[in-house]
Amino acid sequence: MCESKKHESYLKYRDELIEAGLLIPSGVQGVFGRNKTFEKVVAAFENYVSKMASERKCEVVSFSPILNRAHYLKTEHVYNFPDLLGSIHSFKKREPEQAEMIRKLNDNEDWTRDLDPTDVMMTPAACYPVYPANSGTLPLGGKTIDLTGHVFRHEPSDDPARMQIFRQREFVRLGTADEAREHRDYWIKMGKIILDSIGLKVKVVVANDPFFGRGGRLRKATQREQDLKHEFIIPICSEEDPTAIASCNYHLDSFGSKFDIKTDNGDIAHSSCIGFGLERVALALFKTHGIEMGKWPSEVLNILEL
Amino acid sequence: MCESKKHESYLKYRDELIEAGLLIPSGVQGVFGRNKTFEKVVAAFENYVSKMASERKCEVVSFSPILNRAHYLKTEHVYNFPDLLGSIHSFKKREPEQAEMIRKLNDNEDWTRDLDPTDVMMTPAACYPVYPANSGTLPLGGKTIDLTGHVFRHEPSDDPARMQIFRQREFVRLGTADEAREHRDYWIKMGKIILDSIGLKVKVVVANDPFFGRGGRLRKATQREQDLKHEFIIPICSEEDPTAIASCNYHLDSFGSKFDIKTDNGDIAHSSCIGFGLERVALALFKTHGIEMGKWPSEVLNILEL
Repeated sequence: MCESKKHESYLKYRDELIEAGLLIPSGVQGVFGRNKTFEKVVAAFENYVSKMASERKCEVVSFSPILNRAHYLKTEHVYNFPDLLGSIHSFKKREPEQAEMIRKLNDNEDWTRDLDPTDVMMTPAACYPVYPANSGTLPLGGKTIDLTGHVFRHEPSDDPARMQIFRQREFVRLGTADEAREHRDYWIKMGKIILDSIGLKVKVVVANDPFFGRGGRLRKATQREQDLKHEFIIPICSEEDPTAIASCNYHLDSFGSKFDIKTDNGDIAHSSCIGFGLERVALALFKTHGIEMGKWPSEVLNILEL
Repeated sequence: MCESKKHESYLKYRDELIEAGLLIPSGVQGVFGRNKTFEKVVAAFENYVSKMASERKCEVVSFSPILNRAHYLKTEHVYNFPDLLGSIHSFKKREPEQAEMIRKLNDNEDWTRDLDPTDVMMTPAACYPVYPANSGTLPLGGKTIDLTGHVFRHEPSDDPARMQIFRQREFVRLGTADEAREHRDYWIKMGKIILDSIGLKVKVVVANDPFFGRGGRLRKATQREQDLKHEFIIPICSEEDPTAIASCNYHLDSFGSKFDIKTDNGDIAHSSCIGFGLERVALALFKTHGIEMGKWPSEVLNILEL
């Protein structure tokens, strides 16, 4: 599909979602409110995932959409995705400078230069706060963490599936290399079972995404060879350019070494995770089964208890 | 209580919450993760509020923690609370500038000056996205909107009840002056009933908070005279300096005129809201009934269905 056709299909689905009231436009690309039905679908999917994962012992936690700036910088995200980051700035000066900032604002000059960086950044992946929170020695058998969090990615787009802020449901494993790989392998299978069972016929593909380490280009080949990233893809707006609605990542000891996480025998911990993009799952459901939730196949409604 | 005593009491309760695992420190003041028990209390309180408010017909929506920058600027928050705002910046330049930014980062220079403001800001109050989303003419009888959202306030503090990011459950009324006042009066009563019933003996006080209009100082007296802001206060860390865990605000036609919201007969709409600070309510519950949720009075556990 040529780019302009693809763009048309983005606008068409986006407008259909807005027309149906499922998404509420904000005037900024990729930033939407959601109505009760959309949120019901997201909550139903979350409950279903919880049920399907109930055999896996998890620690349930919750983090905020913002991250300690020092922790952000340790992840090296800034080296690979500076265009996606969100740095939070505020006004830290005093009265005379305040008057000058307000003058700039009123005169349509760039007033934001008078702000200073705060100690926080937007969270680029829901699992990032997990690693610094687990610095130290893990219990025997490691840990599995279950969380839902907000993710910010500065990539304004008309594709409704490419939001600047969205929620991820993640299961993160911290432990030995074997434990991290077992978690990854389990979730590649379970992720497909979950998504298939609600009518989302995803394809699992090995993906390249230089999400850790400096010098993204060099790392791409290595990562692909090692099968570190698997994506669950399905067409939402475009058949030729399907969307990843979930992904499984094995990070080797990347986070373990950056945040000093050790297994109970003193080795650097390995980690892996699965992340479901909750808005993308909902958008895939509305695309696959129709914009009116009440008319979805009864099997899907039953499974999701909708 | 002198300032140092107050500060001690902040640290004591904060450390108690961390020790119990309820809050997970991030290394930044006022930014915490929460464990399953803390989130269960928040969810239980939300469900209870929904039940108590079920006689009021509401439109349920959900917004993201970020706000259209143009909408943010219309609210005039920047004039009154520049020190609290959160402006989101990202890297918008190209390769040569990227190398220079990375050099600064590696040399411990201020790399954030190479970022540019994006089209979004952190949301300063959960109801802010409601007003631009309702530009235009309201249906007869106006609208009541029910939402939970994240709020950012740059005020780093050791007081665990003064977080930089937290959640507000809000009920927002858009309509005539009479409708807005009725909503405010209803919620002043209902808010107290809800909080009292779970053992939080709040005091409702008229507060001053120059939250709209330029020239905060002048407005303070006016606002107090008009009883525009009521706070539900209760001691959390300090008896002498109680914490507002909820507030009721009548905005007159401030948001209506800024965002061109009209009643069905063409008048500028008035608005009012109640906001419950969800983390603060939970912290007040843990302070009042004890750090172990299982040992709370059975009446409170029953009401909250915990």
